[in-house]
Amino acid sequence: MLSNRRTVTVEWGDCDPNGIVFNANYYAWFDAALHGLLRSVGLSLPRLMQEEGVDGLPLAENHTRFLRPARPGDELTIETTVAAVHRCAFELQHRVLMGDALAVDYAETRVLTIFDAASGRIRAHPLPATMAALLSGGAAACLRA
Amino acid sequence: MLSNRRTVTVEWGDCDPNGIVFNANYYAWFDAALHGLLRSVGLSLPRLMQEEGVDGLPLAENHTRFLRPARPGDELTIETTVAAVHRCAFELQHRVLMGDALAVDYAETRVLTIFDAASGRIRAHPLPATMAALLSGGAAACLRA
Amino acid sequence: MLSNRRTVTVEWGDCDPNGIVFNANYYAWFDAALHGLLRSVGLSLPRLMQEEGVDGLPLAENHTRFLRPARPGDELTIETTVAAVHRCAFELQHRVLMGDALAVDYAETRVLTIFDAASGRIRAHPLPATMAALLSGGAAACLRA
Amino acid sequence: MLSNRRTVTVEWGDCDPNGIVFNANYYAWFDAALHGLLRSVGLSLPRLMQEEGVDGLPLAENHTRFLRPARPGDELTIETTVAAVHRCAFELQHRVLMGDALAVDYAETRVLTIFDAASGRIRAHPLPATMAALLSGGAAACLRA
Repeated sequence: MLSNRRTVTVEWGDCDPNGIVFNANYYAWFDAALHGLLRSVGLSLPRLMQEEGVDGLPLAENHTRFLRPARPGDELTIETTVAAVHRCAFELQHRVLMGDALAVDYAETRVLTIFDAASGRIRAHPLPATMAALLSGGAAACLRA
Repeated sequence: MLSNRRTVTVEWGDCDPNGIVFNANYYAWFDAALHGLLRSVGLSLPRLMQEEGVDGLPLAENHTRFLRPARPGDELTIETTVAAVHRCAFELQHRVLMGDALAVDYAETRVLTIFDAASGRIRAHPLPATMAALLSGGAAACLRA
Repeated sequence: MLSNRRTVTVEWGDCDPNGIVFNANYYAWFDAALHGLLRSVGLSLPRLMQEEGVDGLPLAENHTRFLRPARPGDELTIETTVAAVHRCAFELQHRVLMGDALAVDYAETRVLTIFDAASGRIRAHPLPATMAALLSGGAAACLRA
Repeated sequence: MLSNRRTVTVEWGDCDPNGIVFNANYYAWFDAALHGLLRSVGLSLPRLMQEEGVDGLPLAENHTRFLRPARPGDELTIETTVAAVHRCAFELQHRVLMGDALAVDYAETRVLTIFDAASGRIRAHPLPATMAALLSGGAAACLRA
């Protein structure tokens, strides 16, 4: 399965009056990690919207466990791995590490959506075959070039 | 059990290029809903820190389901209810409503913590009896006055 | 000139490790105050985009003075007033009050823009006459109804 | 004068429904740029608080000009330079570049503050000599080691 890794330096403004990262900020980092994962194999949501006519890649469900607080100046590593690829959706597992210690554990499900003009509603849309292959770690080479 | 309700107007800057609320912003609203719930019965984290010597009320675990996207100008109602009160922790259930429709469903566990000078570590701390009673909905009147 | 007033409760997560509002959060509040001002006379950026074909209302320039820090639980009043209406732009003055004391003083210039397909660039666009009149405080009644 | 440079990738969640960076996010990046500048010469606000007894380094005044919008995937370079060092304050100039083009121009004044127990108020505090020297670009070597 496809995976990626990025480093985040915890900034003063990321932290709350307890001096630890305010929980909402992790979700901005996880979202950036998803988009970074897509970019790492030549995919991007703007391009998917333009080329595939899809509408978005919304977060459907997630689960987080916060194990250790992080503070200004801490260097966090966010490891992101595709955990499952479904027909219209995929699952990611993110692990936030401080050194070797697990700080936050995060699982999320994303759905590819399309606007259905007939019904005026948004509905799930099958992942393009190339996207599914790239997320599965199979055919990454074809887009990386 | 104690509960509270607040209204949030979705602002332009809360939304992403798809024109829907960026998921990280919900967590700032849920955090504000927790503190609003505490304030509704005369509690506050700054006061707990000052009067009880506790260190914080960190988020330990959560689970979110996103059911409907919200857009600029939408009025959201966030209903927050205490779902369980444990010795050192409590659970909240938040429901984000757009009109009558459930938009987001969010469960979280908070732990009361104290800094233990002996070990140099943070550890869980029992909820003060009054706080536990207020969260359980029993003795709210005594602090509301 | 048109003006508006809103209240913001400073939340725990709005504050930094010094326990005071993290400066970036004021800009989200000022942006919301602008959109609230527009809504107060029946205008909105989504509607302007749809009905007038404009592209956006970006912030061109601003100036802020921070006079007093605000802390969790503080109630802030944001007073927003149109300071000037130009052909393609307008200026707002925001005053953040804690009780009677001025906490933050903020001036901003917004420009109405349109995407010019011929040049492929964004350029300034004249304010629609009704919008200019509403911002000037003259003809508000016609849209308020 | 001391200067520093950092790169920011614009993420999907940094952008508003117009698909351009929401203005408030620049202020989080500028704040991080200040702290990065301090770290580049071995200074940090937490350390200043611990070693010098100061209370904070609040933003007193700023001025921003927004010249070009940035979009998801854009790589921004933020160049931060000390523009002036005063007795209790210093001024920074930040330039946000997209390639060679100036996107945002930002000037800010920071004041070092201390809590005065006698009056119960916060007041300006002289910059420690080493800090003033480092910001001025003179004696950076002594702390960099």
